[in-house]
Amino acid sequence: MKQIAASQAYRLLEPGPVVLVTTQCEGVANVMTMGFHMMIQHAPPLIGCVIGPWDHSYEALSETGECVIAIPTLDLAEAVVDIGNCSGDQVDKFQRFGLTKRPGKAVSAPLIVDCLANIECRVADRTLVDTYNLFILEAKEIWIDEDRTETRTIHHRGNGSFIVDGAMLNLSDQMAKWRHLP
Amino acid sequence: MKQIAASQAYRLLEPGPVVLVTTQCEGVANVMTMGFHMMIQHAPPLIGCVIGPWDHSYEALSETGECVIAIPTLDLAEAVVDIGNCSGDQVDKFQRFGLTKRPGKAVSAPLIVDCLANIECRVADRTLVDTYNLFILEAKEIWIDEDRTETRTIHHRGNGSFIVDGAMLNLSDQMAKWRHLP
Repeated sequence: MKQIAASQAYRLLEPGPVVLVTTQCEGVANVMTMGFHMMIQHAPPLIGCVIGPWDHSYEALSETGECVIAIPTLDLAEAVVDIGNCSGDQVDKFQRFGLTKRPGKAVSAPLIVDCLANIECRVADRTLVDTYNLFILEAKEIWIDEDRTETRTIHHRGNGSFIVDGAMLNLSDQMAKWRHLP
Repeated sequence: MKQIAASQAYRLLEPGPVVLVTTQCEGVANVMTMGFHMMIQHAPPLIGCVIGPWDHSYEALSETGECVIAIPTLDLAEAVVDIGNCSGDQVDKFQRFGLTKRPGKAVSAPLIVDCLANIECRVADRTLVDTYNLFILEAKEIWIDEDRTETRTIHHRGNGSFIVDGAMLNLSDQMAKWRHLP
């Protein structure tokens, strides 16, 4: 996996793929599926996401303030659904779904080698956690697997229905560069 | 346009399409392009979005507490970029881009007839507006154009590069219904 600047998080998350989130607490790693997330700010790169007490990962994230947002592609679609169907309270999901962990650099939560990209994050703001379970994370390190052939992410439409990435449309020449982006 | 329940907002927004946002203040309507948004809660349906003082719409949204999130499809891609390239301070964007307005039901901001869907929203929480320009909106009414042939939305990867909706993948049979959704 190749490292890219944390400022590039928006390229991965603004398109709205469904993601996996890993945590690690007291030596135990867990992974969950997450659809409610957004970019909030370019610099420093801030990400909003909803993880609630109904998620087993909520306690680990609250406790450690660390997680990894991993971006799965089409080949992992069934695992993505099933990861959301069971709880880390009862099962080691890395083992059950044959996911390969790798240590990150900035956080204790593991990277998922089987994903297209991994964003190491640290909780930056908990103001709206009590009200909406809305965590604001700062992206610290990003890793991309540049060797995989399947790069299509999937977008959750609710109730297990997904849209798969289709064609690319490049209108960058048309885009005014009036706002300086990293 | 057909009306559907406001609780269905997640089906439109969770996949992460780039959207247009309309406002209306003192009789003047405006529209902007927005990529930073997310679902926050199913019931009542809450949406997070970043609209900053650099956006001309910021003042209208702050003033009126109302907006419409309109979802454009591939046929509007060039307009979506150009709408983000100019400011409502200097131009009537509805006129420039040939967009057709229609009055909504719950808010004064107009619907955009040319879009696939329109979500009428009211600001529900401004706690993080000062810190991150993060508005939390409640979806009030949703309108869908069921007659259009082009239904593919586009997802911004940053810098004017987009991913177009591809195939549908239906894994709803595999999805455990352990969490009751509307």
